Amino acid sequence: MPDAPRFSKGLDDVVVGRSSITWVGGETGDLVYRGFDVRDLVPGVPYESVVHLLLYGEPPSADPSREVGRELAARRDAPAPVERVVDALPAGLPPLEALRTILSALGDGSFGYPPTLEEGFGLIARTPTLLARYVRRSRGAAPIPPRPDLGHAANFLWMLHGDAPEPRRVAALEGYLDLLADHGMNASTFALRIAISTQSDLASAATAALATLKGPVHGGAPSRVSDMLDAIGSPDRAAGWIADRLARKEVLYGFGHRAYKTEDPRAVVLHRIAREVAQPDRLRLAEEVERAALEALHRAKPGARLYTNVEYYSAVVLEAVGLPRELFTPTFAVARTAGWTAHAREQAADNRLIRPDVEYVGPSKGRPWPRPLVGH
Amino acid sequence: MPDAPRFSKGLDDVVVGRSSITWVGGETGDLVYRGFDVRDLVPGVPYESVVHLLLYGEPPSADPSREVGRELAARRDAPAPVERVVDALPAGLPPLEALRTILSALGDGSFGYPPTLEEGFGLIARTPTLLARYVRRSRGAAPIPPRPDLGHAANFLWMLHGDAPEPRRVAALEGYLDLLADHGMNASTFALRIAISTQSDLASAATAALATLKGPVHGGAPSRVSDMLDAIGSPDRAAGWIADRLARKEVLYGFGHRAYKTEDPRAVVLHRIAREVAQPDRLRLAEEVERAALEALHRAKPGARLYTNVEYYSAVVLEAVGLPRELFTPTFAVARTAGWTAHAREQAADNRLIRPDVEYVGPSKGRPWPRPLVGH
Repeated sequence: MPDAPRFSKGLDDVVVGRSSITWVGGETGDLVYRGFDVRDLVPGVPYESVVHLLLYGEPPSADPSREVGRELAARRDAPAPVERVVDALPAGLPPLEALRTILSALGDGSFGYPPTLEEGFGLIARTPTLLARYVRRSRGAAPIPPRPDLGHAANFLWMLHGDAPEPRRVAALEGYLDLLADHGMNASTFALRIAISTQSDLASAATAALATLKGPVHGGAPSRVSDMLDAIGSPDRAAGWIADRLARKEVLYGFGHRAYKTEDPRAVVLHRIAREVAQPDRLRLAEEVERAALEALHRAKPGARLYTNVEYYSAVVLEAVGLPRELFTPTFAVARTAGWTAHAREQAADNRLIRPDVEYVGPSKGRPWPRPLVGH
Repeated sequence: MPDAPRFSKGLDDVVVGRSSITWVGGETGDLVYRGFDVRDLVPGVPYESVVHLLLYGEPPSADPSREVGRELAARRDAPAPVERVVDALPAGLPPLEALRTILSALGDGSFGYPPTLEEGFGLIARTPTLLARYVRRSRGAAPIPPRPDLGHAANFLWMLHGDAPEPRRVAALEGYLDLLADHGMNASTFALRIAISTQSDLASAATAALATLKGPVHGGAPSRVSDMLDAIGSPDRAAGWIADRLARKEVLYGFGHRAYKTEDPRAVVLHRIAREVAQPDRLRLAEEVERAALEALHRAKPGARLYTNVEYYSAVVLEAVGLPRELFTPTFAVARTAGWTAHAREQAADNRLIRPDVEYVGPSKGRPWPRPLVGH
């Protein structure tokens, strides 16, 4: 006999399937890709090797993965008709809005069902290159062609800025991309899997994922951490600014996460990367704001398990990498195309339409239309 | 104490929230908008009045709704920068692929959170006009400006074809749009609500919905009903063709639905509309194929509750309206923009991030990376 329906508005207590890609240990503070603890991978493992691990399930035989490096480098140029759509985007459009249309434009009729590895490599390779193309044109600058001698992270910076990227910035971005490459079943990945569950294609599903990641509750807020740090300005103002903000019942960005009831391992590793790459003043400010915020939050809610989340040191790291704030969430998406591809393929491999029920609480059937109708 | 997590791959037995928009009575064959049985609304209620009912919860004071008619007519022209993106789409792109990028391009940075009625009217008004613009340009023809004297359904046909649409075709399309305007919590509406649950915007959420509707298991198959009817060709070949097909274990399009365990009321009303508008030969073929298919399906699976679904007579009706097959699913989306707007606003009114869990079944934590890493 089937169980009675479960009512669950946020689906917190619903397990929507099995996955062998990523383990998010919310109680223990673990993030594990295919059995590998991200703390053991970052810094050091190139993004191409993380893509290899996520897509094939096993580490490559060399770092960076030769197969993935070759597949991605070969696909950096997008078809000309896709570039024409990207070039038609209005210059003032925020890059996160532009990226949704870029991902949709990638769906040029060549993507099918089930999603293939080749389609995934195309998505992963072209998301940063088309984003960089848009950003350049949006600034009135010419797009910069990809450099086949550069890895994925370095090439993204090259195509944005057009000068040889500093190795420590490349390493910091690489660590960021590794850490954000997947995170199990979050809202955007869930939207992607729902799209694939109707036998839609990977370009469509990635567009749905980006449309979901775009919300500030999910991926759209790291730039607000930078804005907050700017507003505070110096370490000695941190405690007062935070107390004011909490007194006005306003949110502090960069703290708390639905999954983690302890330290988010990504936040820990990103803090370590920030110590390597951030300007000393900015780092000191960020650390003092973090300390003051956690103290104030714990005083306001004693016993609450509130920790620094991934957004906080993401902002500090991406600033230090030299990315403008409006590229923070798009760069999150650049990282996540790897996880999206892995989840789309996993969903398709054992597919079932995802279609929950809803409880209807509106007026009962039988209301009469107030006027006679033609044709009745 | 919280309940133990529920494992549910397709979420069939999970109720994801409450809604007062649409009741889908799968056991009784009911489809009810805000208390009004669709069988009492179609034919006769103009699409503007159904939009009014879905968005405001009450019928308008006149038909067609004056408020909605005015709001939609005023928004048919899209901003020029959005039109430029649409005009950059490659001519050979299937309209369903194009529509995903069109919806994304509508997100020009002006959509916020929570979604507003005005944003909804813009989405509903511009989806058909930009789709028609794309279709015209794709055929090498000039776009046709909207006609403010025409209602929503008639204006869509006008902008596609450029001649005064026949009233019985307009009426048939209007009935189709009414019947497809909402359907509770299906996969595309669920994807939309997940996007809104992250506080993303309506243009993004509608793009996610279309990306999900695109899958043939959800919205992408009505044209295959037409293809099937063509392949059968004449009523006397129906039984044999179907027997062959079932013997090869191939699917018959247009039968069975996850929600309905009895007749789909939309199929019943669309069949009635088809009798009014379809060519007699085509209607006879469709009816004979339906009869033979149901007989064969019930013989193959005695006792199975398999009925004609909405796709079957959708195809016959949309053919008779004069729409090419590649516009069937896009026209489904044109209708559904009303329901998407209603659901987006309902989700935002009492919002909670939708984020299920997943059971990790991959390798255990602790696998060592096979090579030493730089930086460790």
